[in-house]
Amino acid sequence: MSDTFVWDEEREARLGFDEAVFCGGKTPAQVELILERAIDADRGLLLTRLDAGRHEALRSDLRERLDYDAVSATALLGAPRAVRSTGGVAIVTAGTSDLVTAGEAARTLRYYGIEAGLFADVGVAAIWRLSARLGEIRGHAVCIVVAGMDAALPSVVGGLFRGPVIAVPTSVGYGVAAGGRTALHSMLSSCAPGITVCNIDNGYGAACAALRILGVQR
Amino acid sequence: MSDTFVWDEEREARLGFDEAVFCGGKTPAQVELILERAIDADRGLLLTRLDAGRHEALRSDLRERLDYDAVSATALLGAPRAVRSTGGVAIVTAGTSDLVTAGEAARTLRYYGIEAGLFADVGVAAIWRLSARLGEIRGHAVCIVVAGMDAALPSVVGGLFRGPVIAVPTSVGYGVAAGGRTALHSMLSSCAPGITVCNIDNGYGAACAALRILGVQR
Amino acid sequence: MSDTFVWDEEREARLGFDEAVFCGGKTPAQVELILERAIDADRGLLLTRLDAGRHEALRSDLRERLDYDAVSATALLGAPRAVRSTGGVAIVTAGTSDLVTAGEAARTLRYYGIEAGLFADVGVAAIWRLSARLGEIRGHAVCIVVAGMDAALPSVVGGLFRGPVIAVPTSVGYGVAAGGRTALHSMLSSCAPGITVCNIDNGYGAACAALRILGVQR
Amino acid sequence: MSDTFVWDEEREARLGFDEAVFCGGKTPAQVELILERAIDADRGLLLTRLDAGRHEALRSDLRERLDYDAVSATALLGAPRAVRSTGGVAIVTAGTSDLVTAGEAARTLRYYGIEAGLFADVGVAAIWRLSARLGEIRGHAVCIVVAGMDAALPSVVGGLFRGPVIAVPTSVGYGVAAGGRTALHSMLSSCAPGITVCNIDNGYGAACAALRILGVQR
Amino acid sequence: MSDTFVWDEEREARLGFDEAVFCGGKTPAQVELILERAIDADRGLLLTRLDAGRHEALRSDLRERLDYDAVSATALLGAPRAVRSTGGVAIVTAGTSDLVTAGEAARTLRYYGIEAGLFADVGVAAIWRLSARLGEIRGHAVCIVVAGMDAALPSVVGGLFRGPVIAVPTSVGYGVAAGGRTALHSMLSSCAPGITVCNIDNGYGAACAALRILGVQR
Amino acid sequence: MSDTFVWDEEREARLGFDEAVFCGGKTPAQVELILERAIDADRGLLLTRLDAGRHEALRSDLRERLDYDAVSATALLGAPRAVRSTGGVAIVTAGTSDLVTAGEAARTLRYYGIEAGLFADVGVAAIWRLSARLGEIRGHAVCIVVAGMDAALPSVVGGLFRGPVIAVPTSVGYGVAAGGRTALHSMLSSCAPGITVCNIDNGYGAACAALRILGVQR
Amino acid sequence: MSDTFVWDEEREARLGFDEAVFCGGKTPAQVELILERAIDADRGLLLTRLDAGRHEALRSDLRERLDYDAVSATALLGAPRAVRSTGGVAIVTAGTSDLVTAGEAARTLRYYGIEAGLFADVGVAAIWRLSARLGEIRGHAVCIVVAGMDAALPSVVGGLFRGPVIAVPTSVGYGVAAGGRTALHSMLSSCAPGITVCNIDNGYGAACAALRILGVQR
Amino acid sequence: MSDTFVWDEEREARLGFDEAVFCGGKTPAQVELILERAIDADRGLLLTRLDAGRHEALRSDLRERLDYDAVSATALLGAPRAVRSTGGVAIVTAGTSDLVTAGEAARTLRYYGIEAGLFADVGVAAIWRLSARLGEIRGHAVCIVVAGMDAALPSVVGGLFRGPVIAVPTSVGYGVAAGGRTALHSMLSSCAPGITVCNIDNGYGAACAALRILGVQR
Repeated sequence: MSDTFVWDEEREARLGFDEAVFCGGKTPAQVELILERAIDADRGLLLTRLDAGRHEALRSDLRERLDYDAVSATALLGAPRAVRSTGGVAIVTAGTSDLVTAGEAARTLRYYGIEAGLFADVGVAAIWRLSARLGEIRGHAVCIVVAGMDAALPSVVGGLFRGPVIAVPTSVGYGVAAGGRTALHSMLSSCAPGITVCNIDNGYGAACAALRILGVQR
Repeated sequence: MSDTFVWDEEREARLGFDEAVFCGGKTPAQVELILERAIDADRGLLLTRLDAGRHEALRSDLRERLDYDAVSATALLGAPRAVRSTGGVAIVTAGTSDLVTAGEAARTLRYYGIEAGLFADVGVAAIWRLSARLGEIRGHAVCIVVAGMDAALPSVVGGLFRGPVIAVPTSVGYGVAAGGRTALHSMLSSCAPGITVCNIDNGYGAACAALRILGVQR
Repeated sequence: MSDTFVWDEEREARLGFDEAVFCGGKTPAQVELILERAIDADRGLLLTRLDAGRHEALRSDLRERLDYDAVSATALLGAPRAVRSTGGVAIVTAGTSDLVTAGEAARTLRYYGIEAGLFADVGVAAIWRLSARLGEIRGHAVCIVVAGMDAALPSVVGGLFRGPVIAVPTSVGYGVAAGGRTALHSMLSSCAPGITVCNIDNGYGAACAALRILGVQR
Repeated sequence: MSDTFVWDEEREARLGFDEAVFCGGKTPAQVELILERAIDADRGLLLTRLDAGRHEALRSDLRERLDYDAVSATALLGAPRAVRSTGGVAIVTAGTSDLVTAGEAARTLRYYGIEAGLFADVGVAAIWRLSARLGEIRGHAVCIVVAGMDAALPSVVGGLFRGPVIAVPTSVGYGVAAGGRTALHSMLSSCAPGITVCNIDNGYGAACAALRILGVQR
Repeated sequence: MSDTFVWDEEREARLGFDEAVFCGGKTPAQVELILERAIDADRGLLLTRLDAGRHEALRSDLRERLDYDAVSATALLGAPRAVRSTGGVAIVTAGTSDLVTAGEAARTLRYYGIEAGLFADVGVAAIWRLSARLGEIRGHAVCIVVAGMDAALPSVVGGLFRGPVIAVPTSVGYGVAAGGRTALHSMLSSCAPGITVCNIDNGYGAACAALRILGVQR
Repeated sequence: MSDTFVWDEEREARLGFDEAVFCGGKTPAQVELILERAIDADRGLLLTRLDAGRHEALRSDLRERLDYDAVSATALLGAPRAVRSTGGVAIVTAGTSDLVTAGEAARTLRYYGIEAGLFADVGVAAIWRLSARLGEIRGHAVCIVVAGMDAALPSVVGGLFRGPVIAVPTSVGYGVAAGGRTALHSMLSSCAPGITVCNIDNGYGAACAALRILGVQR
Repeated sequence: MSDTFVWDEEREARLGFDEAVFCGGKTPAQVELILERAIDADRGLLLTRLDAGRHEALRSDLRERLDYDAVSATALLGAPRAVRSTGGVAIVTAGTSDLVTAGEAARTLRYYGIEAGLFADVGVAAIWRLSARLGEIRGHAVCIVVAGMDAALPSVVGGLFRGPVIAVPTSVGYGVAAGGRTALHSMLSSCAPGITVCNIDNGYGAACAALRILGVQR
Repeated sequence: MSDTFVWDEEREARLGFDEAVFCGGKTPAQVELILERAIDADRGLLLTRLDAGRHEALRSDLRERLDYDAVSATALLGAPRAVRSTGGVAIVTAGTSDLVTAGEAARTLRYYGIEAGLFADVGVAAIWRLSARLGEIRGHAVCIVVAGMDAALPSVVGGLFRGPVIAVPTSVGYGVAAGGRTALHSMLSSCAPGITVCNIDNGYGAACAALRILGVQR
């Protein structure tokens, strides 16, 4: 392990993305090693999929240096960047359980200095809620739509919002919705023109796509 | 074959549904045989999935006795029943290619004396179209929603219409939408409470479900 | 979280359904918060998928106010509504393990004042059991059929019962039956005309569909 | 090709099954070559999946020597064996379109001298039809059940028939039933104990299984 | 629960199979209730999928009355039947992990008085092991073949054994073999004529099929 | 049909996208009707999935007014817009058969006045071809990557190109690659951060996404 | 098209493989263009998936220059290389319909100067045929095993042959075997250690893998 | 159990592979029994999928005799063989989580006396890392490529490395990548000619394939 995690300076220069640490499947010891290296190098760091159990298991001196958010299972190491003024990103979610993935997107954007607007629980089974907040949503340059189950929301948003729409399916649900394939396929099949889609639960990827569009990685 | 198609009088008495003839996979000769028997017995008959090619291939004297509709691929034999007054059924579709299945439902209902209201091309990527016709739709007792692709429409309708909502996925689409599984799963996963679903392209089944609800099979 | 759960008065007015709380995936703390709000607002509440572990973990003062049923994993808060006279709903199940989902349907109906008739363990591998109770089942206006594995029961019931038949597949089973896809597909493919289907294990949805048909949400 | 089709005398001796020719995917020329060899060797031959088009395309002198059945797409070469008295095989089908596969089974059995009893169109959506013929069916030693769509029939038969039940799913159907996976999975998940299953549309295999049970291959 | 488990005397009379108890998914309390009833009725009982954990959790006085086998996760209540002389059943397995399912089949047969011959670990990657025991296997009337992974064994056995061959796929394996679908499909696709197949891990069903063939249920 | 195709002026105003006509599944008569209406209204029109057969079948006076491209199966009606200067879109493809979808994207962009740069046949099995053209590709604001089979190209491009990357899977291929699911899943799983994905073969959608990003719909 | 097909001299130098032309999905005109270029450049060429229809449609002067093989759907342009002495490749097939893919492998090897040994129709349902030819097969350095349906053959061969075994699934079959997924998964799950697998029907790839192992691309 | 695990001397002689013990699904007691037998027989032994929990649970006297590696979950019993000089095997991985499977391959090779070269974390989203180490990789006779997610790496390596390339998909990933099917399909669909593939996570199999190629099993 110790030989394989290095800051890829070349990649950071080319793409403008810092290395992020996907903690899913990593042991606490592996996460601790990475944190120590980042601290030694005096670098900030974004950690995703750091669930509460793994977070609790980290050495306390390391854990205390993290800005941890349990809902999104993300942690930030180091002082946050200053918030930039960019016209911004709206994150729209269908249900409360989509907040995990929406939070991962929001925290990733915050790491790069973007404060996203969050519009939660405006799923299409209660379409009047979305209508009520449409003006606000339209005030942003990019819209990330997070939805599970039937994922009908991106189609409605995509018919009302003119800018780029990035859809993120979530694995929330039961029966045929379990695991997120239904939401994913629904988004890919959307009748609204020009919606693009990320992998299931990939809030981090949606945020990176928004950063590429805004051109503000660094 | 000649031994296996008989009017199941008992079934008709129990359920109130006449025998319907699913022509998909049947040869013209097989369809002709059934038509002859129905004419001999002086019975009306509903034929579904009778595509234009099969219809053209029927013996002309039989073909001329049919009320054929190419869009829905259905044919009616015999004088139509009088239209009943029931409070009615609304059929709502997302796109023009859903008219095949919507038509199968409408013709089945008409066979039983119900004139359905058709609300076509009100998919959610243009939500204002649906809003404009919502009052009319609400004037019906039962709503059949036909949609392919992402099938977001039933969720929106199910959040606005108080009565029974029967959703029918269609096989229209390409990529992950091809074949109708995405639409089916999307409908089953709908966040709107109490929507029920039929098999892909099953307009006939949706009409029968509406007839069961209205209690007007015969 | 605190900002996203609100009583959607508009939805309740439109559809006649109260907000129900799907507890699957919610933490005890999230459930407690919702219960407190409902108590403050002096509202009744239906909770589904509240498994025994989560129920046990609730704060005891809140837990004591709940009418909890372990088999169906549902809880009711507040005094139950008076039972209405409606002609009624029959719930028919194939096997004992289908009682979880059947119970969710029954409890949802009870929340809205409907006392359903339960006909358990009448699967088709013992068809004489069903025959013995058919007269009773026919005395109801709507029939919900709950079945896992091969889900042959709805086809048989759908050929004997004239009114609306709502089929609910369950995830019970092993091998190709595990997860409920086989039961779902079997129901969607039923030869009995006019059967409609809900998502796997969705007893709540089946009950809502019955309420829409009976028109007795509120 | 000419080097690879030979009578496997050893196999015939071991299992008692003659070589059968699966014509699906073979060109008329390939079938003709095999027929010529069989005629040269003065052997009888069973051909399956010989659809009408391929049959028509065969050289007329060869075609005339075949006992061809269009419904089951099978042909027999040579004089048929005398019918044996064995207690017999019942073939039960759910719908008329299952007759293709049922016919393949019946013709295979006939090739080996067994005249099967055919009980067609007794699907469970009309359960009284099956009841009416149950006594007759029970008079056989082995029961082959052929069904597509939801394939509910084998479960009912398996609960009423005491001897071996061999279930054959058919690819008949549309939507989720298309291709026969739903019928296959439904049969494998049957609640009736001791039902066994063949591949989709495999009437030939079901007949061979019955022959193994009866011990009458040769 | 208490109302739904009853001895179905009619079924037992028709099919000759006693009620068996599938313990997968049942709580210890549910199993205990059934055991008590069987003891009260002075009946023997076969329990399947009673894993070690559930077995340990049973009330000790009940547990002590069971003849439990941990490998096959089965338990027998009551004195075993006398072994009958029938010509017998051979159970052939590909690997050691198939012994769970093979054991379930063997114990079910034993419950009905049949002592099966077990031929373990004769998978085709070591074909000489099978050859060495072929003579013995051929001494039985029926052959049950249990295999996971690529399930090549039934094809080889089916080409060497003349009597009925019942194939049971197991869920053993990883990657594309995990869960048993590969083994199931492989068995259904076997080139050896007349092999029939049971659901994944369904040793009980295979035994019942053998009992139907031998006609020795009771 | 005649009632269901109308210019949705409101949608055009909101999103800036003209109505486009997806000809897959439409009859020549239906396409002719739409063309006549567009000509009457003096509007330009983009038609996609108009394959050579359907194009040939159009009435000659209508066909002659179309700018048709057989490779991409697209047609433009009306004078093209002037080309705008926008920084541009690069379209990168893995193989020659991806040119169908790439062409659909390029023609859609051209309809809106964007002349895309095409970089064909630079798949990763010949990585030096991509390297040779990387400088040119980087000169564009947005990159659309079209690939079938294993779709490894977007991951490589996504690691070298800083701006937005829109990946389009194609249905080209055989075996596990047939239909495009492998390419789709591969793109969704890409390790390069911030790549977003369209439905299989959806070149039109990718172009619309690029237009949303550039903000140049109209 | 004309800009995108070029001889990739660098690739040829690196890997030692000539460009091969996959004709599946290419029009005759596209194939003719490539042939003309090869003739102009005085190069040999291997064409795969050139079915009889496409071959017939080629311009006669070009067609006459091809060494065409209808069974394998391959064509060679130019004088064949001299046969090299390498220890060789054995190609083993389970059934006659596997000869298409086996032929593609054999012709690819021949293009590079390797004359493979073909061992056809030695499927495991007749294991004695394989045994009879095992000595010959073992005389080769590499073994390619081609099989469809249950693909049991590679496991048996892999347990008897010491050298590299390359397994190629074929799409031959019906029911669950149709398309080749069952054969593919069966091969990947083989219990014989160290078997590797190619895509379905990929005889060309298997030959290339053998060439890599023998180190004789050029 | 005790009767079914034996050293298959014949297999070892034929193939040159020692029996290896797949511990996934085995209890510690079963593993201990095998270890005792190997010690009694004075044999070395390779154990795979022996996760940390199972390893910890082994009897301490047995555990102490093992050379255990937690990352690859493998254990070696007995003195290692001397390292042979063979030209060697390169193992290339895309990400750090692929080290589990890469390690299983490396340890298997080491068991047979081959010291593989490990090239970790050279995934294609950072293509320059691979370029930097290409010279070294090319110094080996065989290349094993281990990758999860989109598995783009084997296509790139297969276009740059002339010798045999064995690709191993890993189950690492989330969303559509979870379980390894995407990686598997991507590898099978690779455009680089002559790549062959093993089952998901099957590092052991890849090593055995390399040993077959090198001819150094024993």
